[in-house]
Amino acid sequence: MEAGGAGEVDHLAGERATAQFDVDHMKVAWAGSRHAVDVADRMARLVASDPVFRKDNRTMLPRKELFKDTLRKAAHAWKRIVELRLTEEEANLLRLYVDQPGYVDLHWGMFVPAIKGQGTEEQQKKWLPLAYKFQIIGCYAQTELGHGSNVQGLETTATFDPKTDEFVMHSPTLTSSKWWPGGLGKASTHAVVYARLITEGKDYGIHGFIVQLRSLEDHSPLPGVTLGDIGGKFGSGAYNSMDNGVLRFDHVRIPRDQMLMRLSQVTKEGKYVHSNVPKQLLYGTMVFVRQTIVADASKALSRATCIAVRYSAMRKQFGPQTGGPETQVLNYKTQQSRLFPLLASAYAFRFVGEWLKWLYTDVTHKLEAKDFSTLQEAHACTAGLKAVTTSATADGIEECRKLCGGHGYLNSSGLPELFATYVPACTYEGDNVVLLLQVARILMKTVSQLASGKQPVGTMAYMGNVQYLMQCKCGVNTAEDWLSPAAIREVFEARALRMAVNCAQNINRAPSQEEGLYELSPDLLEVAVAHIQLIIVTKFIEKVEQDIPGEGVKEQLRNLCNVYALYLVHKHLGDFLSTGCMTARQGALANQQLGKLYAQLRPNAVALVDAFNYTDHYLGSVLGRYDGNVYPALYDEAWKDPLNDSPVPDGYREHLRPLLKQQLKLSRL
Amino acid sequence: MEAGGAGEVDHLAGERATAQFDVDHMKVAWAGSRHAVDVADRMARLVASDPVFRKDNRTMLPRKELFKDTLRKAAHAWKRIVELRLTEEEANLLRLYVDQPGYVDLHWGMFVPAIKGQGTEEQQKKWLPLAYKFQIIGCYAQTELGHGSNVQGLETTATFDPKTDEFVMHSPTLTSSKWWPGGLGKASTHAVVYARLITEGKDYGIHGFIVQLRSLEDHSPLPGVTLGDIGGKFGSGAYNSMDNGVLRFDHVRIPRDQMLMRLSQVTKEGKYVHSNVPKQLLYGTMVFVRQTIVADASKALSRATCIAVRYSAMRKQFGPQTGGPETQVLNYKTQQSRLFPLLASAYAFRFVGEWLKWLYTDVTHKLEAKDFSTLQEAHACTAGLKAVTTSATADGIEECRKLCGGHGYLNSSGLPELFATYVPACTYEGDNVVLLLQVARILMKTVSQLASGKQPVGTMAYMGNVQYLMQCKCGVNTAEDWLSPAAIREVFEARALRMAVNCAQNINRAPSQEEGLYELSPDLLEVAVAHIQLIIVTKFIEKVEQDIPGEGVKEQLRNLCNVYALYLVHKHLGDFLSTGCMTARQGALANQQLGKLYAQLRPNAVALVDAFNYTDHYLGSVLGRYDGNVYPALYDEAWKDPLNDSPVPDGYREHLRPLLKQQLKLSRL
Repeated sequence: MEAGGAGEVDHLAGERATAQFDVDHMKVAWAGSRHAVDVADRMARLVASDPVFRKDNRTMLPRKELFKDTLRKAAHAWKRIVELRLTEEEANLLRLYVDQPGYVDLHWGMFVPAIKGQGTEEQQKKWLPLAYKFQIIGCYAQTELGHGSNVQGLETTATFDPKTDEFVMHSPTLTSSKWWPGGLGKASTHAVVYARLITEGKDYGIHGFIVQLRSLEDHSPLPGVTLGDIGGKFGSGAYNSMDNGVLRFDHVRIPRDQMLMRLSQVTKEGKYVHSNVPKQLLYGTMVFVRQTIVADASKALSRATCIAVRYSAMRKQFGPQTGGPETQVLNYKTQQSRLFPLLASAYAFRFVGEWLKWLYTDVTHKLEAKDFSTLQEAHACTAGLKAVTTSATADGIEECRKLCGGHGYLNSSGLPELFATYVPACTYEGDNVVLLLQVARILMKTVSQLASGKQPVGTMAYMGNVQYLMQCKCGVNTAEDWLSPAAIREVFEARALRMAVNCAQNINRAPSQEEGLYELSPDLLEVAVAHIQLIIVTKFIEKVEQDIPGEGVKEQLRNLCNVYALYLVHKHLGDFLSTGCMTARQGALANQQLGKLYAQLRPNAVALVDAFNYTDHYLGSVLGRYDGNVYPALYDEAWKDPLNDSPVPDGYREHLRPLLKQQLKLSRL
Repeated sequence: MEAGGAGEVDHLAGERATAQFDVDHMKVAWAGSRHAVDVADRMARLVASDPVFRKDNRTMLPRKELFKDTLRKAAHAWKRIVELRLTEEEANLLRLYVDQPGYVDLHWGMFVPAIKGQGTEEQQKKWLPLAYKFQIIGCYAQTELGHGSNVQGLETTATFDPKTDEFVMHSPTLTSSKWWPGGLGKASTHAVVYARLITEGKDYGIHGFIVQLRSLEDHSPLPGVTLGDIGGKFGSGAYNSMDNGVLRFDHVRIPRDQMLMRLSQVTKEGKYVHSNVPKQLLYGTMVFVRQTIVADASKALSRATCIAVRYSAMRKQFGPQTGGPETQVLNYKTQQSRLFPLLASAYAFRFVGEWLKWLYTDVTHKLEAKDFSTLQEAHACTAGLKAVTTSATADGIEECRKLCGGHGYLNSSGLPELFATYVPACTYEGDNVVLLLQVARILMKTVSQLASGKQPVGTMAYMGNVQYLMQCKCGVNTAEDWLSPAAIREVFEARALRMAVNCAQNINRAPSQEEGLYELSPDLLEVAVAHIQLIIVTKFIEKVEQDIPGEGVKEQLRNLCNVYALYLVHKHLGDFLSTGCMTARQGALANQQLGKLYAQLRPNAVALVDAFNYTDHYLGSVLGRYDGNVYPALYDEAWKDPLNDSPVPDGYREHLRPLLKQQLKLSRL
């Protein structure tokens, strides 16, 4: 069965015939269940077959038209969701496959959850139905021109006025302008605004407030509210479909009950009081949001590898020295050694994302039971996974683009847009470096508590095995020994723990703990990465140990798991060798085994990306077409460019003809 | 003296006051001479002060307008060049500072050199004056839809017809369409076209032909010639200002004397004959072109680091735990450990580029004397330096963008465009992976000849020291010992040689040499990179050993050189440890010393990027402003976006109001 295009001949049929596993079952393993495959399939086709959702012209639209196209698609998507009575699961998938950043992402992804998480029951009852029916459109206004990562430094104020029972929202400085929130510039009527709560002359720090920004009659900004778009962003289309906005308040008044009051309230008299709801509950939301970001990483990276693998299988370049037809680019070992680890990473991120979903449920249950014992570990784990997977995905997409050679630079390859749309994930919801430092600090704390006998939990449990891991020797003797999950797990655990312990010792040598953490922060980043990579490897190994139906499916996943792990061993060999986790010879054996794994992966590569089950519409890439019929499509696509409207370009008369005709003389050249 | 903007207050004055060296002399060290500083300064200001050359709106222009803007700028630049009687040096700099890819780049950079290098004297006399006066516009049509790296696989044919004394240019397949050449789509009237020469029924392989493509009267494509633009590319503006083109021939006839005949000719009778000009002469051009690419790498990376350093110095985020004002982002060790190595790389690439210029002169002299003994080494060296510097620069620009946080994602930061414009350098003029494999093959050959006593030359001379380098032990005992240039040079030489020898031994174990080279090609890439990094480190060390005037200038360059080398040691620690070039403890000392070097670099960072002497116009970045007054500029820039033309966006009536007003009911959500 064909997943996408309308080609008549399958130019990649030969590639598909060499697969040594059941692709259909692999689709289930990838998606999580048969149901997940089916519903995704239905929604993807629904979007692909609807002309309103076409996106092949997206990179050619000027900004205003592109934005209007976003509004059109959002309204049409909503219409279809209502008409077809789609479930929430279906609606989310439909929006995913529409694949155009827009205000709805923030409305559903941030505005609604903020009210759910931070609003009282009464507030939820009032606001959620309006949001659910799109009677209001909301966004999430936190970041300011001068403050991103440091939320506690935000400058916007919400000063309580007991005389009128209102908060006065104000932007006291230029740098306090809200800046970046998606959907804020043009589409949203409301926002959850984060501001310093000031009452009775005292600053109580950052709190959330529901603020109406635009008239519900004619959409014009309300008095005292300045709203605009913050301007063009990376890429031709990409996030330019989104109205990331700027917002300034000039003493705008809102009723007191629009403060989000689940955790704390201000009384009519202006008293600030805490509720009895533990503030740890807020961490649940953070775990949830970051879990979706990890899931998105596997989606983006799998799209990029799907394009690069298919194109590398059809593209031929150079031949054997004996003559004859040219060689498929995918047969080159250099191509394999760059591309297959990314393919393996896409699978690795997919499965760790699946596990994070479980973790979120687990955390939620524990929070409801007021058990906060695993919260810090869960927080570190999700923050670190967000950082590691998004960075690897951003780099991986660009690597896939380069692996497609010159043609990867064309918008019609889909890769420039995929990259430009994806990279903000490294910055939003916690800058990756800031997050990794948080993880590392928790690791340092855990190390310092080991001596006191406190047992680390969850993904840090391995650190309790410190006696063994600090002195164990890797037992690998042959390249094949590296296929043992136990051997892999052990070196990753030893590496992570030894790096953490070394770093903790170096910090202890500093004049103070704070100074040590500051001076050694570049090392701390590496400690955190080692820990997180261990988690990803472990979760992949655990996945492969499960029952997985379908002929050959498990074998392929085991192969991908080994590729992922041994690729990391090779890439971070300095870590493994300097901590004495393995010898140089064992490192060379790992690299040797990696080469063998690539050879085993090669005949399965195209089928492994087919298992993602992406339509040609969703991929949005001439190079990644399901049928591999790339060249005619590239050629046809070119002629759609506005520059080809006429054979002689605009500007010829004014700027080319005079040059060619005047025969200006250049005196000294 | 201020380099750029018109700000009244210098927000970075404090940073400039802490510099421990003479910035003016550093400008000379960077530019190469006082004269080079002065002429660059004059040309940069000439461009910056001319309203035709404004580029702040570039990312907002639709494709056709952007292209027209390129035509306008090119014609205006030419007008200024003629009016002001600029020298070739001045004209080249003026074009550099106009900073917009366009047909002139290919006309001067590829078309003219191709005729100079491959045309006979007669041909040069006929065609060059036309090109010099812009009576014709030329481009370089080599790459085809189906063939990039493998030039020998090109399919376009040039069949000699003795009856009419003409060549018949033809595109026999879709994949033979010329595809990518800059300036081809819309601007060029002529091209040097590469095609298979067929005469007397025999295919003589790829040769160059001068072909007229468009009428000189009305610019319309000539009969039998299909011309178009190949469509949108990465970025909002970037290379979309260039008409990369597609070209197809339907039996187009050209006179026999338009074959470029310096190396071989076809006689009137159709006989193919070689001239007595050695074909090695062509390599001179390749060395020249790649030398300019390395120079461009240092320019692009220095622009990116200039933006990131200045912004990191003004941006503040988080404060000390004791309270008080927030900390400059540049004070964070994590920021320094990512940014300072890139700043050091920009300097390293600048100096190796300067040396390559000398190498080109040297090669040219030797070629003229028919001495081809150093040609292979020079070829390997330039190919490898092209690959390593462009890859590091592309990654480095993106890293600088990330180092600017969220604001780096805005087009007004200049970084997205810098990246999108730069990345094709990794692919054009030789894909970096293909080039590195060429370097590695030459290294393997050199290793295999060591036993026979053949002494390697030039940048490979160190390999002759094989006895010592295979067994030497790094003598570093303290962190400060890593400041010794001799110690650094030795570990880089030992690492490069040992990796090459190991790889050669592994290849020898393969059933055949070819099979070994194929299977181990991923390792070969690493061997080539190690060799090229050694060259860059060595040339930097040699630069610092020269006389360099100006207070503190030499000390700063020595510091940058050490940062560059020790950063590489840390990054590639696996190489150094697995080859036994150093111990884990010595690796840790290197890292420790690196931290100290960052601290020494910190007070000089802003002055070190000031030394690049870039105008605010050329930088094109709100974040990189000379005066550091970033926030008001960011804010003002936003309002220029077309989306801000009206407070209520286009599309509200059609797509937002109905949504907000209809109060559609969603049944199951």
